[in-house]
Amino acid sequence: MSSGTPVFLAACRGEPVPYTPIWIMRQAGRYLPEYRAVRAKVSFEALTRTPELAAEVTLQPLRRFALDAAILFSDIMTPLQGMGIELTFEPGPVVREPIRTRAAIEALRPLAPEQDVPFVLETIRLIRAAAPRNVPLIGFAGAPFTLFCYLVGGRPSKEFEAARAFLYSDPQAAVRLLDHLADAMAAYLGAQAAAGAQALMLFESWGGLLAPPQFEHFALAAARRTLSALRSRGVPLIYYLNQGSALHERLAALEADVIGVDWRSPLGTVRRVLGAGKAVQGNLDPAALFAAPEVLEREAERVLREAGGQPGHIFNLGHGIWPHTDPDAVARLVDIVHERSARGEPGA
Amino acid sequence: MSSGTPVFLAACRGEPVPYTPIWIMRQAGRYLPEYRAVRAKVSFEALTRTPELAAEVTLQPLRRFALDAAILFSDIMTPLQGMGIELTFEPGPVVREPIRTRAAIEALRPLAPEQDVPFVLETIRLIRAAAPRNVPLIGFAGAPFTLFCYLVGGRPSKEFEAARAFLYSDPQAAVRLLDHLADAMAAYLGAQAAAGAQALMLFESWGGLLAPPQFEHFALAAARRTLSALRSRGVPLIYYLNQGSALHERLAALEADVIGVDWRSPLGTVRRVLGAGKAVQGNLDPAALFAAPEVLEREAERVLREAGGQPGHIFNLGHGIWPHTDPDAVARLVDIVHERSARGEPGA
Repeated sequence: MSSGTPVFLAACRGEPVPYTPIWIMRQAGRYLPEYRAVRAKVSFEALTRTPELAAEVTLQPLRRFALDAAILFSDIMTPLQGMGIELTFEPGPVVREPIRTRAAIEALRPLAPEQDVPFVLETIRLIRAAAPRNVPLIGFAGAPFTLFCYLVGGRPSKEFEAARAFLYSDPQAAVRLLDHLADAMAAYLGAQAAAGAQALMLFESWGGLLAPPQFEHFALAAARRTLSALRSRGVPLIYYLNQGSALHERLAALEADVIGVDWRSPLGTVRRVLGAGKAVQGNLDPAALFAAPEVLEREAERVLREAGGQPGHIFNLGHGIWPHTDPDAVARLVDIVHERSARGEPGA
Repeated sequence: MSSGTPVFLAACRGEPVPYTPIWIMRQAGRYLPEYRAVRAKVSFEALTRTPELAAEVTLQPLRRFALDAAILFSDIMTPLQGMGIELTFEPGPVVREPIRTRAAIEALRPLAPEQDVPFVLETIRLIRAAAPRNVPLIGFAGAPFTLFCYLVGGRPSKEFEAARAFLYSDPQAAVRLLDHLADAMAAYLGAQAAAGAQALMLFESWGGLLAPPQFEHFALAAARRTLSALRSRGVPLIYYLNQGSALHERLAALEADVIGVDWRSPLGTVRRVLGAGKAVQGNLDPAALFAAPEVLEREAERVLREAGGQPGHIFNLGHGIWPHTDPDAVARLVDIVHERSARGEPGA
């Protein structure tokens, strides 16, 4: 680790670190009473569009816990609103006119981040000015196929039938839409890096709904298009894939520094499949935060042990933290991860 | 294959068959206009409780398609209603009083199928009297952990947070409830076999939400309890696991003849992991039925090729058929599977 490089950034690059860094997906969120206090006064959408408030809730978990990274508070659908797509949060995103025709796809305009989502970039600048120097800020976007699921489906769904059927019924049009989204997210994340984001993450929440050939042809090709465009930014790139157990071998060649892993795939298996060139991030079951302290400790140690230690592991949950989680369990988890990994004896 | 043994049953037992048998999960359902015509007159719940109607909709797809098996029309929650649990279908099952305390678990009574669900057994007798002799009837139940998800959670959910947290917060009580459900489903399936069901299937829709250690300790242990009790019935046992990509190696020792595989796990990989003792069932993506005919053909051939042919493969979708599917696509699929597999050149 270069002197002065934050532990999280060094771990993303596979450099040696003194302990395993940890942050928590959705760490700024409803499980925190101070977050709920802000939300009592303002809608979710207004919160994502008001830089002072979005920066405040981003910083809230850093005051409570010794987390090693911050992540921008926003929503994956926010840049699509900037592109002229009308949607509401009920609380999941509902698109007023789902996109299912070639005409609707061709009518989409590119994203111009400084004009379309200036409040996101301002939020990033505010966070950077206020966050501790050793806690880097992660910018993020939805992966193209995950956005595609909402745009085509129109609303959250267990199976995203409409989006998955569209891949088969009009594959050329599907690729057009995915390419469009990939380019928009590359512009969006590039602007986030220019505004100060020190790592960039793509959330592929629904790519794991696809069989491997469709995943590779549609979701992964689009994610690759986004990530390739960002390589020159010089910041670590993270690709989180939910339900990826059958898909990790396809990620070995992806231009990401870090693969985020859901709670179902043992990290040792994933690291073997990915090879030495990539770090992994994850993957405690969010449900484990409801366990008795000694069980939580055992489960956290299991994740550290399966990851095989450093270099190349960033601790996280395997999915976003649940709203009913006790914040004290998060505090315990952060301590366990830091202490055990610093001793270099995970699971001992 | 013994002379006269239906192809489906022979394939379940890993015996040689002249072609690959096929049936479709949810083949009796909303994609069929004749099913919708019945449902226009009667509620879903009434349909499951009226033997003449349940038998009729079970038989409907057999009149249209050359399917190799029938499956009882019912719902996995039906036997729980018989055990005194109050629930409604809205349309997913909603439990009036979710079970989250030890007292609620101890208050559950065992299932006595002949008293509690006589209409299911009568439905089976009616189907057997009317179905073609070469089309065996599959009885089914929900796997214990999948039922647990609905009972503890109270309603359908994407993540089943309450159920998964309960496994960590009170693992002993969770095992009590799972054992209770396992015994009830063993009694239920045993009675189905006695009434005439020629194969028995456990649907593990939500076990794949668990990390491997929790899957093994809770979901798989309970499924094993059910299946072990049924071994002496002499009918093939099928265990369908959704989202099972990280879990198949744990199924090799399960007392099931057939493992049902979702659309994300390549069948070749699954068969290698399971070993020669088990047949596999699956696993075309339900979305592929929305493709152009030549693409559907290519995808069906891919599944046949990945399965490696006979013995030991039953063709199916990897999940239930979707309500908007065109029945003509199902007819095409059945023909493709029968023709290609009889020629012995899948994917050629």
